[in-house]
Amino acid sequence: MGRNTMQITPPYLMFLGDVPDQLAAKTAQGIVDWRPEWCLGQIRLPGCKADLRLPDLTIAEAAAQGIKTLIVGVANAGGVLPDHWTDVIVAALTAGMDVASGLHTKLGSKPAIAETAARTNRKLFDVRHTNQSFATGKGHKRTGMRLLTVGTDCSVGKKYTVLALEKAMRARGLAADFCATGQTGVFISGRGVAIDAVVADFISGAVEWLSPDAAPDHWDLIEGQGSLFHPSFAGVSLGLLHGAQPDAFIVCHEPTRTTLRGVKTLLPSIADVIDLNLRCGRLTNPNIRVTGISVNTQALEDGAARALLDQLSATHGLPATDPIRFGVANLVDRLVQEFPANPPVGA
Amino acid sequence: MGRNTMQITPPYLMFLGDVPDQLAAKTAQGIVDWRPEWCLGQIRLPGCKADLRLPDLTIAEAAAQGIKTLIVGVANAGGVLPDHWTDVIVAALTAGMDVASGLHTKLGSKPAIAETAARTNRKLFDVRHTNQSFATGKGHKRTGMRLLTVGTDCSVGKKYTVLALEKAMRARGLAADFCATGQTGVFISGRGVAIDAVVADFISGAVEWLSPDAAPDHWDLIEGQGSLFHPSFAGVSLGLLHGAQPDAFIVCHEPTRTTLRGVKTLLPSIADVIDLNLRCGRLTNPNIRVTGISVNTQALEDGAARALLDQLSATHGLPATDPIRFGVANLVDRLVQEFPANPPVGA
Repeated sequence: MGRNTMQITPPYLMFLGDVPDQLAAKTAQGIVDWRPEWCLGQIRLPGCKADLRLPDLTIAEAAAQGIKTLIVGVANAGGVLPDHWTDVIVAALTAGMDVASGLHTKLGSKPAIAETAARTNRKLFDVRHTNQSFATGKGHKRTGMRLLTVGTDCSVGKKYTVLALEKAMRARGLAADFCATGQTGVFISGRGVAIDAVVADFISGAVEWLSPDAAPDHWDLIEGQGSLFHPSFAGVSLGLLHGAQPDAFIVCHEPTRTTLRGVKTLLPSIADVIDLNLRCGRLTNPNIRVTGISVNTQALEDGAARALLDQLSATHGLPATDPIRFGVANLVDRLVQEFPANPPVGA
Repeated sequence: MGRNTMQITPPYLMFLGDVPDQLAAKTAQGIVDWRPEWCLGQIRLPGCKADLRLPDLTIAEAAAQGIKTLIVGVANAGGVLPDHWTDVIVAALTAGMDVASGLHTKLGSKPAIAETAARTNRKLFDVRHTNQSFATGKGHKRTGMRLLTVGTDCSVGKKYTVLALEKAMRARGLAADFCATGQTGVFISGRGVAIDAVVADFISGAVEWLSPDAAPDHWDLIEGQGSLFHPSFAGVSLGLLHGAQPDAFIVCHEPTRTTLRGVKTLLPSIADVIDLNLRCGRLTNPNIRVTGISVNTQALEDGAARALLDQLSATHGLPATDPIRFGVANLVDRLVQEFPANPPVGA
């Protein structure tokens, strides 16, 4: 952490506006799930139907508790920022907080917000947009270890898997940092880049920035996006693969899906996903290998989930798990086994 | 043409500023080479060392000749727009012309230019930037035929090859349109999108916009960018391949290069380029095939160039040519043979 500029400072006050349901607060809930120690309170407007089960704080109470950043972690129709939300944002800035938003509307596009931020010298973060300028990718091998989650599709658990790995690896005393490439991840990490919002020429360069040289035993756990087989987003996935130059990747999958999200293209097989990621990934890391399979088995009964994981494990010779249901111990075991931190002399 | 919004209107007046050499006017020269009938004159400031061998016109003379657009088709250090160029641009707007620029600096960032354009109701085009909003790619099969040039690397003749094909195919009475994906191409076509400037999520969607449904016999000849094997730009190349959903592609190559442009990565083999483009291209067009090889043989003697092309042709079972040196007749022959416009009944 702290290796680079874009940095959202915890602790956080979660602003939920007056969103109509819990689903609209999905991003905020993800932050609370993974960084409970950062999320000290919530602030809601009359009519709000979402609840993070955090203390409801006023801006003054939040400031008194040392909260550094107001997080607008809700989604509403079109991603716009309603006018009647600006008062809370202006009050937070005035009370000395930065503000970070995941909406399409830029915070600074509201004159009252822009003026207050300038006057109070506070920072506005629009995590869906990036003002960071990147170099083009260079493809040089960097020091340190890297793991990337890839997918048969979008929204199959790539972020969840790396976050679960970070937690489990740290618990074993391994040096591991989650590297965020999507907006929820940026809030959870406090830094990162919404890679789908970067200008096309700089996709791999942005990932090189996100995961620079590190200590030889250090793992960057890089959140994957999309799929090499998704006709809308494969370019993002390939640039991400090349920039990440992973030593290891884990394939994420949702077993009940037949077509890719938002399009009519058929879901690729796990074998094809492994093969194409190996082939393309070798461009920037000739030693890339696959080390596991992560399946979202939510739609299956326990027995069916176990059977599917056993079958995938046997077919591909890889550990397979559902991180939510069964944890990621087997994925970490394999990583430790394949990449011993202190390889024996002569190995 | 005219199928979509972004449209630069010819004829053109070429503005060269006071650039220090001919190389700085490479974009402008490309426009003159491919669209001589559109380029009626040039305008140069004192000290300009570039010359397109067009009549030197004043703004008043250009306006009197019916010129519609002033083209800023030069590159200088950093792509900035020098302050002392604004007078000519303001004069052109005042005389009723639109202005199109390939510089990084946006025309409208200069207050005098922005104000004059607003007052005179003229258009400013910054072809390196795009204000066009695109949908994400859908991957649906569109009507009409499509050819894409792909490469072993950047800058290996992808634009030149499709422009040469357009000319040769039109000469044979085929319906063929060049589709520009880079800034020089946009000036030459009058429309298009600088695909490397699009936000990453919309690469394939932008190409779907660029090459919409067309008549069954109509060929869109789509300018390729980068290479699936370039660690900086492969994401762009993959999104372009998926969005283009080509029926046919031609591999472009420069035989003396050993590493990819700007990086230390080794050049891929033509066989690998064919294989990976076929494999990835099948996602949006299961019938994709390779129909030729286009080589920039500038560094070779005539005999060596011929020998290389013969060898490549034999190795890959494809027509091979250098479009500049030997024309593209063999590439068109193969296209016509493989995709007969009116296939015989029962075929």
